[in-house]
Amino acid sequence: MKQIPGGICAAQGFRAAGVHVGVKTHNTQKKDVALIVSDVDCAAAAVFTTNVVKAAPIHVTKAHLADGTARAVICNSGNANACAPQGEENAERMCAAAAKAIGCAQEAVMVASTGVIGQTINVKVIEEGVPALYAGLERSDAASDAAAHAIMTTDTVKKEVAFEAEIGGKTVRIGGIAKGSGMIHPNMGTMLCFITTDCAISAPMLDAALHQVARVSFNRISVDGDTSTNDTCLVLANGLAGNAPITAPGGDFDAFAAVLTALCTALARMMAKDGEGAKHLITCTVTGARDEGQAETIGKSVISSTLTKAAIFGCDANWGRVLCAMGYSGETFDPERVDVAFRSAAGEIAVCEKGRGLAFDEDLAKKILTEDEVVIAIAMGEGSGTCTCWGCDITYDYIKINGDYRT
Amino acid sequence: MKQIPGGICAAQGFRAAGVHVGVKTHNTQKKDVALIVSDVDCAAAAVFTTNVVKAAPIHVTKAHLADGTARAVICNSGNANACAPQGEENAERMCAAAAKAIGCAQEAVMVASTGVIGQTINVKVIEEGVPALYAGLERSDAASDAAAHAIMTTDTVKKEVAFEAEIGGKTVRIGGIAKGSGMIHPNMGTMLCFITTDCAISAPMLDAALHQVARVSFNRISVDGDTSTNDTCLVLANGLAGNAPITAPGGDFDAFAAVLTALCTALARMMAKDGEGAKHLITCTVTGARDEGQAETIGKSVISSTLTKAAIFGCDANWGRVLCAMGYSGETFDPERVDVAFRSAAGEIAVCEKGRGLAFDEDLAKKILTEDEVVIAIAMGEGSGTCTCWGCDITYDYIKINGDYRT
Repeated sequence: MKQIPGGICAAQGFRAAGVHVGVKTHNTQKKDVALIVSDVDCAAAAVFTTNVVKAAPIHVTKAHLADGTARAVICNSGNANACAPQGEENAERMCAAAAKAIGCAQEAVMVASTGVIGQTINVKVIEEGVPALYAGLERSDAASDAAAHAIMTTDTVKKEVAFEAEIGGKTVRIGGIAKGSGMIHPNMGTMLCFITTDCAISAPMLDAALHQVARVSFNRISVDGDTSTNDTCLVLANGLAGNAPITAPGGDFDAFAAVLTALCTALARMMAKDGEGAKHLITCTVTGARDEGQAETIGKSVISSTLTKAAIFGCDANWGRVLCAMGYSGETFDPERVDVAFRSAAGEIAVCEKGRGLAFDEDLAKKILTEDEVVIAIAMGEGSGTCTCWGCDITYDYIKINGDYRT
Repeated sequence: MKQIPGGICAAQGFRAAGVHVGVKTHNTQKKDVALIVSDVDCAAAAVFTTNVVKAAPIHVTKAHLADGTARAVICNSGNANACAPQGEENAERMCAAAAKAIGCAQEAVMVASTGVIGQTINVKVIEEGVPALYAGLERSDAASDAAAHAIMTTDTVKKEVAFEAEIGGKTVRIGGIAKGSGMIHPNMGTMLCFITTDCAISAPMLDAALHQVARVSFNRISVDGDTSTNDTCLVLANGLAGNAPITAPGGDFDAFAAVLTALCTALARMMAKDGEGAKHLITCTVTGARDEGQAETIGKSVISSTLTKAAIFGCDANWGRVLCAMGYSGETFDPERVDVAFRSAAGEIAVCEKGRGLAFDEDLAKKILTEDEVVIAIAMGEGSGTCTCWGCDITYDYIKINGDYRT
């Protein structure tokens, strides 16, 4: 397996484009609609938000995905099309416009939206913009870049990655783009992420792989504890790699799941690192837990703790907040077996052993926590369960961004 | 029932004091130890944090409270005595020092601590300070004020209130002091709160009243989603009001529970309003829910939502975040029946009806949300369940306070 360029266009037969049509009204430089099209029909699978309040495009995409196939994805930023009048009608109109340009069935187009909740989406500017969007489709680094930018809201950097691997004796490519960066929390179906692959794989196996991988990647990040109404992760597989189609569990399926895991984990880390206002990527590793479930509950509780996030922002080795967040996670455990250490490119420092504070070098701790990427390493001393979760610190900029996001 | 002065000394037979002994080393002006003593033995009850990681004083107080009686409470701020070496031994030493001065059994003294987690408490300065603390005991407004200040950490104002009411033909007084203001979240036993009353009530009935009332007051506030290791709410009842002792459910018990509810709700609101860095008290009222449980889960989810808190900080009527937080609360409901309005001293404005945004006057909305105390009023349209929860906004100051709390 190796990382390759090309993003969402890395796999054979996928073209993309991203343009500004006017959904975002404040800044006419910012792209706001992306289109991703496969040359041929694809097996498709998706996971969606677990929020009871679901945006209209989620209902539409679920319906269109019922047969496990897709040709294209249209996505806008700047408006979530959630809790808004005529939501499903407008989402269908986005699909219809794309389908007309492509020359495919309306049900072959998936739709997603991200942005403000509760306002009517300006679907007319999207419909008017689709012909130019379609005309601009390319299979290139630049096209993936444009699509990756067109789905961004408060993200400060695009999230894009691709890998290739040998599966069934053929070179298979898989690429993805994603967006954060607020309203992000575990226990969801993930936020916006589109993945394309030329791997030949059946829709049921693609669905199985996506669910398996989302659980250990996107569902293990948190920015702010708020699970969005629009979370969608969609994968299209067009089979152009020519490998023997994966239709059952086995070595090829495992190889595909491994590449998908690498891809989704890379995108999940990018989302956590670019959390709204974030200065630090926080990785929490839990080892020695009773089982993976206990490790996950505890790891998620730590990366979601506002006080722990504020301590990391302040480069303060306040490990008591880590213990505290473990303690209210809902899991039972023996605090007297817990060890905690902080680690980064600048070194590693043990701060707590068997639930009691250690004397440690405050200057070294500060230096370690000043790095962009820091690890909170927790050893539970109870068993062999492990889990890794990703989050970010909470900063003045988070408050600034979200104190006046809508107006 | 009416509000009266006197705080923790309002009830007959209770004296208090608060002094600086040196647990807080940064500022020698700040009081850091409080003592509350009853002239006679009291029935006593408490609720504690549900955090698996419990501070040492909680284990000691639980043991001392096993017989349902108490004479006194000693409490320090500046160090939580949690996850620290010799924690229980040091907590017992605090009780022993107080017991020696008072001339009572060590088991009659309850102990609580609040402050940094994981550092050894300087118990020696407490022991040395107890004789002067005891000598300064008074039944006065000033004494309650001193005790209320001595238990504060990042609180900006003291939390103190008292009521009197007729129970069983006698005037009963009840007073309390409490402290916030970070690491505060529902689903706990509450944070530090001490309540004294001269009501005659048995320990089991006092315990029943406290659990019933904590559920609808302290357990319905959140500052930051972090449930502390040290939360303790303790009530002492010395019977000096001379009412016929309350030993069973009935009219007198209900009257006592009503006053206790008024007291605890007042203190809970004070804690939420003085949440670390807070500029707004946010009250979320949920009506028309299927039942109280559904209303509570949804109300707590809304006041705990970081994004909703940031919107209120920005005086931004971003009701989509309210719907979103309702949706990920874990409760099922029909979003198409939900109405949302914002209310304050400056007026009321409906922003969402049956799950869809209403056109509304942005200037009026801004004016309403600029007030110190704002209400998010949610009507579910499903039944007759209601609940009120309290929280606060998240501000630059929250980040500042918690980015460097420990060092």
